[in-house]
Amino acid sequence: MVTNMAGKHLITLQEWTKQEIDTCLDTAYDLKLKMARRIPHASLRDETVFMMFFDESTRTRNSTEAGATQLGAHAHFLDASKMQIQHGDSAKDTAMILSSYGHAIACRHCGWGTGNSYIREMAKYSRVPVLNLQCDLYHPMQGLADLMTIQEHFGRTQTRGLKVSIIWCYATTHKKPISVPLTQALLFPRYGMEVTLAYPEGYELPEWVIEQARVNAEENGGSIRISHDIRQAFEDADVVIPKNWGSWYADSKKETVENREGNTTLTEAELEKLARNKSWKCTQDLMDLTSAHSIYMHALPADRVNEVEDSVIDGPHSIIYQEAENRLHTVKAVMDLTMGGRR
Amino acid sequence: MVTNMAGKHLITLQEWTKQEIDTCLDTAYDLKLKMARRIPHASLRDETVFMMFFDESTRTRNSTEAGATQLGAHAHFLDASKMQIQHGDSAKDTAMILSSYGHAIACRHCGWGTGNSYIREMAKYSRVPVLNLQCDLYHPMQGLADLMTIQEHFGRTQTRGLKVSIIWCYATTHKKPISVPLTQALLFPRYGMEVTLAYPEGYELPEWVIEQARVNAEENGGSIRISHDIRQAFEDADVVIPKNWGSWYADSKKETVENREGNTTLTEAELEKLARNKSWKCTQDLMDLTSAHSIYMHALPADRVNEVEDSVIDGPHSIIYQEAENRLHTVKAVMDLTMGGRR
Amino acid sequence: MVTNMAGKHLITLQEWTKQEIDTCLDTAYDLKLKMARRIPHASLRDETVFMMFFDESTRTRNSTEAGATQLGAHAHFLDASKMQIQHGDSAKDTAMILSSYGHAIACRHCGWGTGNSYIREMAKYSRVPVLNLQCDLYHPMQGLADLMTIQEHFGRTQTRGLKVSIIWCYATTHKKPISVPLTQALLFPRYGMEVTLAYPEGYELPEWVIEQARVNAEENGGSIRISHDIRQAFEDADVVIPKNWGSWYADSKKETVENREGNTTLTEAELEKLARNKSWKCTQDLMDLTSAHSIYMHALPADRVNEVEDSVIDGPHSIIYQEAENRLHTVKAVMDLTMGGRR
Repeated sequence: MVTNMAGKHLITLQEWTKQEIDTCLDTAYDLKLKMARRIPHASLRDETVFMMFFDESTRTRNSTEAGATQLGAHAHFLDASKMQIQHGDSAKDTAMILSSYGHAIACRHCGWGTGNSYIREMAKYSRVPVLNLQCDLYHPMQGLADLMTIQEHFGRTQTRGLKVSIIWCYATTHKKPISVPLTQALLFPRYGMEVTLAYPEGYELPEWVIEQARVNAEENGGSIRISHDIRQAFEDADVVIPKNWGSWYADSKKETVENREGNTTLTEAELEKLARNKSWKCTQDLMDLTSAHSIYMHALPADRVNEVEDSVIDGPHSIIYQEAENRLHTVKAVMDLTMGGRR
Repeated sequence: MVTNMAGKHLITLQEWTKQEIDTCLDTAYDLKLKMARRIPHASLRDETVFMMFFDESTRTRNSTEAGATQLGAHAHFLDASKMQIQHGDSAKDTAMILSSYGHAIACRHCGWGTGNSYIREMAKYSRVPVLNLQCDLYHPMQGLADLMTIQEHFGRTQTRGLKVSIIWCYATTHKKPISVPLTQALLFPRYGMEVTLAYPEGYELPEWVIEQARVNAEENGGSIRISHDIRQAFEDADVVIPKNWGSWYADSKKETVENREGNTTLTEAELEKLARNKSWKCTQDLMDLTSAHSIYMHALPADRVNEVEDSVIDGPHSIIYQEAENRLHTVKAVMDLTMGGRR
Repeated sequence: MVTNMAGKHLITLQEWTKQEIDTCLDTAYDLKLKMARRIPHASLRDETVFMMFFDESTRTRNSTEAGATQLGAHAHFLDASKMQIQHGDSAKDTAMILSSYGHAIACRHCGWGTGNSYIREMAKYSRVPVLNLQCDLYHPMQGLADLMTIQEHFGRTQTRGLKVSIIWCYATTHKKPISVPLTQALLFPRYGMEVTLAYPEGYELPEWVIEQARVNAEENGGSIRISHDIRQAFEDADVVIPKNWGSWYADSKKETVENREGNTTLTEAELEKLARNKSWKCTQDLMDLTSAHSIYMHALPADRVNEVEDSVIDGPHSIIYQEAENRLHTVKAVMDLTMGGRR
């Protein structure tokens, strides 16, 4: 157990040791039980979490705000477009000032090439923990909830050797970040899982991610492989996580691509590229290829028309609501451990 | 007194027994006095109410949020357009997830033909109370506050035989919901009142409402009549509630009508239809026809140019601010009674 | 020390006695130390502050909301455009109703010619304190924080004779209010400071402000002079506050000017007028003219390209972050003293 996490930033789980992650999950399990039993657990009475959102949110905002309340604290919902950022406030200004007013700064900023740097710039100047609520690269809160959900289903110490497939799927709602698969690809091999990352060409994750995932796997007894065959990804899988993500990285490598930071509306060219991969969909037939006790996960919101058949997402293998609920318990654990220290 | 209301939804008062409504008013009177005397009454410490708004609000949002605070809880203001509903979250998803994070889901959704179904769909899946903050059909929070205000004025047990007129008035600010008159038409006959519902042709309420109101009246000693004569509605009335509402129901019966769900801007045709009824306005002359001790009520905001003369709304018969204040005490009573149960 | 400030409005510091301001600063110093030492100070448990914003905010909203939380209260962030003001609610309606729901109404409304009157209209009808979070004329919360910051730097009783220069600077981000320099010009002479107000022609403050500042100076041993020479303003100054403001007052005197209330986007004519004054910028060279121990202040956000050189705002004389932090402690003091009384 790690007892000196007060003041610690959470930008990517890669920068937290496994002991720190485990302490966080210990705390999450405890808080989940306390809530179910209605045992008060207000460890951060009258503290403030600033939540800055550059992008829409349902689960993240509400789990953080309700979680803060349950801990006795208060989370401000800040729509970044209503702040004075366009009037001249820099990330440094914002971090210096908010961190002198409250006890943590949480931020979602998914702008490609800018989100993570913005959050890191704030962390450089903040005197309180900076918590990443999703950026262009990472979604550590989702990663923690996913890990907790897998542990709850298969046994907390039984993740070694689990076959987990992270699978790209077709969707048209908007150009989604790569932060969820990226976070999972880095995290799961650290818990001994055998990860398959499957996607059609043009939707690859950055090379450094795969390299780091390999290092993580080697150090912890897991593995990672890449596949371009959706059937292969479902075969014998214990955990399937079929979900769309955008071609951010592939596009950013092309010299001709325009800077489309923050614009998640799909262009004609992207729609055409997508259309060639309509067959990447999570169907009942594919689910039948998985292991008997397999689970279907999704960070939500799902594109029910394109990504997945209703019979799967609403079916017996689906644990999406448990996964979503665990967003609450894990973000509470992160706040509980990192906040409340001396400033 | 009813003591097992924990976990109960409030979608329409029609689904609450009179005993339940009376217990709610008992609680509201108690909370009102406690607030005036500054006696702490935080019965829901660190609980969360999610308030989803598809439409603007002042009284409802602020009474719910301040009321939650006074009860020790916290209410999230959620602008539905900033949630991930357009990214794929269904009513079921939203209800399953929010109800696993907090202790009540409150929602305003006035979209004609969709608002009430959305709220009912959430209630089907929520594990915590779902509270209707106004939909296309009902506005139970307003109904409770109105009943409390009438009781305060005439005596809590003296509502039998009171002549109450719900009167359509001309206004042009936007196409307003029918939920306020509909709720009053159903509720007041249950308390023995003699209700007149007055409006020009084309602004009728659904037929099932009138039928249900008749049943309510028969069971409880009240009455309901319909009038198309504004003078008749004011004559000898003890309570007048002159307020504009839209021609939602009349329009929805015409096969040619387009689906205008959520669009409350008035069309040329609607403005023309309205213009024929400019004389439906609450004037001092009409007020002079009411009983000596009569009261003028309005849920607010009022269209002061068209609906009512300033001398009436700001005059001695007006109890609009007491009516508005009672929104606080009644919503606190609803939260106090329905929340806080086992989940 | 003044002990009967409960229920008092704060619209302009001019309407508070020096003893009241000093009591407020006593409280701010105490709350600042308590926060640093993590000593609980929740004197307003479960009370509500309504914060109505007609304009964007970062420091004001977050210092008020976090401050309220630290005092055990809760502040609602209300985007005025999401309220029912455009549906007919008057300032009176809003004040009567919100003040019956909670414990203070705070409001930012910078619309030229309308902001202050709106806030005063609310104060007329509110039964709880109305706190001005910046209007077209005043920004008392900023004034208090600035005074505290100057006192912290030079010694609480050492403000007499300090040379303080309030200097107009070039900026293009938007047409900024005159409330910050106006508030400083009225307040600082009351604390014996020798104030220079420097600006190019066309950017004057209202004449009544200068007259009142002269009275304040005479009564308290300070002084105020006007200059159109930027170098003169920096020479030997102990405190420099270089900041842009708009030509609201100058424009309002011209009969030909259109009513541009609420529109802070710069017109072509205003940009041309501005362009003639590009040389009004806080540079290192100008800072070298100030006294050795001088401080640079700015209410933020700054226009870093035009108003000030990075070497100054990020340099050793700059105390902008301390100034911003003091916004928290002073607004907490105001809430602590004015709220919590009988209603």
